[in-house]
Amino acid sequence: MHKKLFIPGPTEVRKSNLEAMATPMIGHRFPEFVDLFKETVEKLQKLLYTNNIIFISTSSSTGLMEAAMRNCVSKKVLSCINGAFSQRWADIAEANGKVVDRIEIEWGKAVKPEMIDEKLRTGEYDAISMALNETSTGVLSDIERIAEVMKKYPDVMFLVDAVSCMSGTKIDVDKLGIDVCLAGVQKAFALPPGLAVASISDKAMEKAKSIENRGYYFDFLVMKKYYDKWQTPATPSISHIYALNHQMSDIIEEGIENRFDRHSKMAEYVRKWGNDRGFNMFSEEGYHSPTVSCINNTKGFKVKDLNDFLATKGAVISNGYGTLKEKTFRIAHMGDTQMADIEELLSWIDEFLSK
Amino acid sequence: MHKKLFIPGPTEVRKSNLEAMATPMIGHRFPEFVDLFKETVEKLQKLLYTNNIIFISTSSSTGLMEAAMRNCVSKKVLSCINGAFSQRWADIAEANGKVVDRIEIEWGKAVKPEMIDEKLRTGEYDAISMALNETSTGVLSDIERIAEVMKKYPDVMFLVDAVSCMSGTKIDVDKLGIDVCLAGVQKAFALPPGLAVASISDKAMEKAKSIENRGYYFDFLVMKKYYDKWQTPATPSISHIYALNHQMSDIIEEGIENRFDRHSKMAEYVRKWGNDRGFNMFSEEGYHSPTVSCINNTKGFKVKDLNDFLATKGAVISNGYGTLKEKTFRIAHMGDTQMADIEELLSWIDEFLSK
Repeated sequence: MHKKLFIPGPTEVRKSNLEAMATPMIGHRFPEFVDLFKETVEKLQKLLYTNNIIFISTSSSTGLMEAAMRNCVSKKVLSCINGAFSQRWADIAEANGKVVDRIEIEWGKAVKPEMIDEKLRTGEYDAISMALNETSTGVLSDIERIAEVMKKYPDVMFLVDAVSCMSGTKIDVDKLGIDVCLAGVQKAFALPPGLAVASISDKAMEKAKSIENRGYYFDFLVMKKYYDKWQTPATPSISHIYALNHQMSDIIEEGIENRFDRHSKMAEYVRKWGNDRGFNMFSEEGYHSPTVSCINNTKGFKVKDLNDFLATKGAVISNGYGTLKEKTFRIAHMGDTQMADIEELLSWIDEFLSK
Repeated sequence: MHKKLFIPGPTEVRKSNLEAMATPMIGHRFPEFVDLFKETVEKLQKLLYTNNIIFISTSSSTGLMEAAMRNCVSKKVLSCINGAFSQRWADIAEANGKVVDRIEIEWGKAVKPEMIDEKLRTGEYDAISMALNETSTGVLSDIERIAEVMKKYPDVMFLVDAVSCMSGTKIDVDKLGIDVCLAGVQKAFALPPGLAVASISDKAMEKAKSIENRGYYFDFLVMKKYYDKWQTPATPSISHIYALNHQMSDIIEEGIENRFDRHSKMAEYVRKWGNDRGFNMFSEEGYHSPTVSCINNTKGFKVKDLNDFLATKGAVISNGYGTLKEKTFRIAHMGDTQMADIEELLSWIDEFLSK
């Protein structure tokens, strides 16, 4: 039996999007591809309130994180770490020979603008990296206030992992001045994994020109050369681009703001459900994610047992990440998941808890 | 109207493989994924006559070429160039700060073992790179004789782009001693683009350990850590792996050797057809590719006109690559294309030529 996915990626994919994955093939140098690519990019620009370039990468988001580090950091990056995926930024930077300085705070907390300001004041950094929505902890950082700080440092590249919230919360890329804003399509986009997207500012493109050893597969300048023809340098995952284009039409039809609103409401509902049952959130008050709730497992049940029970209903949630494995559990409420799905899921969890 | 693809990638994808792309999603840390991944790897090992590790990368082949250069070349690589894709090896190496020495021969010719031997004798190289099947020119190099030379230099990594021939011709990886043998799934595998595979020798894994700055997304050691659990470090394209697993079963059912044989026969048929009509091959005698025929356009028609005509029949072939655009045309006969498809295509081309 298929288990409906309430894990924070891959998320449940609707039938029409799965069907779009099965579109018969075309050549990636055909005019049909050019049209498909252009359409998809334009819809993504709408979603992100941006006029920036949008790169579509045949890779996971991790690939585009590597791209950002190789293209935007000449020497030193300030990495804001409050969970596993913001940590990944730092790992990637180091693996590519960049110097990494860290703001490391307790998991579950949000990185605060003042912390960033204090560090950037030294003038030592090319870039900062952060996870806007920490999938491992369910923390959404305050991007607006961080963006205000970043405006004081226009030469510092603002690299944002929006992997598990893009299309689930408003990210006004141009207003916020984000230089690289990236995500994979298997989270709030609700598509199968295998494709990642990123908006790239003109400043980031300029920065890339000044940097040596950008590599090839993720070189912004190589990508741009083909982007100007609405193509990609290497053969892309055309199936995913068909599905993304299809899904973006549906997202626009739903209404972008309506979509964000739906995510917020599902998140609130889950929090209220947890609160009513004596759970509390792992994420810091005021910074709860709209796409994934990380809940302290105060009742001490085994998440595996819960999932074994949910499997009989045809659903699955996620345990905690890493050392949080049994201490927290995570419910994703993103993508095309609807309030009714969440209500049903929570009723099953209630059934499990009452045993 | 859908145009049946006779271009050298992406190739035509059968309905059942498209349907496999639309399999409902599972988590990439689920036991179901572990089974899927393991099964797929084991079938690929059979296809390549190897006990080597098989990495499955969510990227195009170009990504795995970058991986090979970053993981297997500490300083200097000998790049054998006889077309656009063997050239790409050199571009990638340079973009990653490696020193590149070149054997550059005329497009359409095969790189000869003696040329490689002469260079390697200097003892200057970490690795050699080559395109076993040059998609741009339809040249299949003599891998067996090159492999004999390579046996004299066991410390030199043998990096082989088998992009447009893997699963279309026999590559006995272990016997040949290939250290990295890579391909994308959109060529002779006849799947949608978006996934690449590579066999990696123990020697290559050892070499990687000695090299700094391997990056992250394509780091063999990171990949290996997850491979040992039948997983991938980042979220992979699960849809593609479903399709690859499905297609590998069909390939094994067809019979691997039967499949290679079918490719040879289609290639012979195309060459004979060309010869009978006064065309000749762009590729050097004795080195014609079994998967793609690059034919000199001795009649001087416009390939675009031919394709406009073929479009009315629901088919498309390829023009020449780069500067060969109008001088050659390319017919791919790979993947799941059958002799009957080729016969039909050629009858349409005859119809065009008779006008």
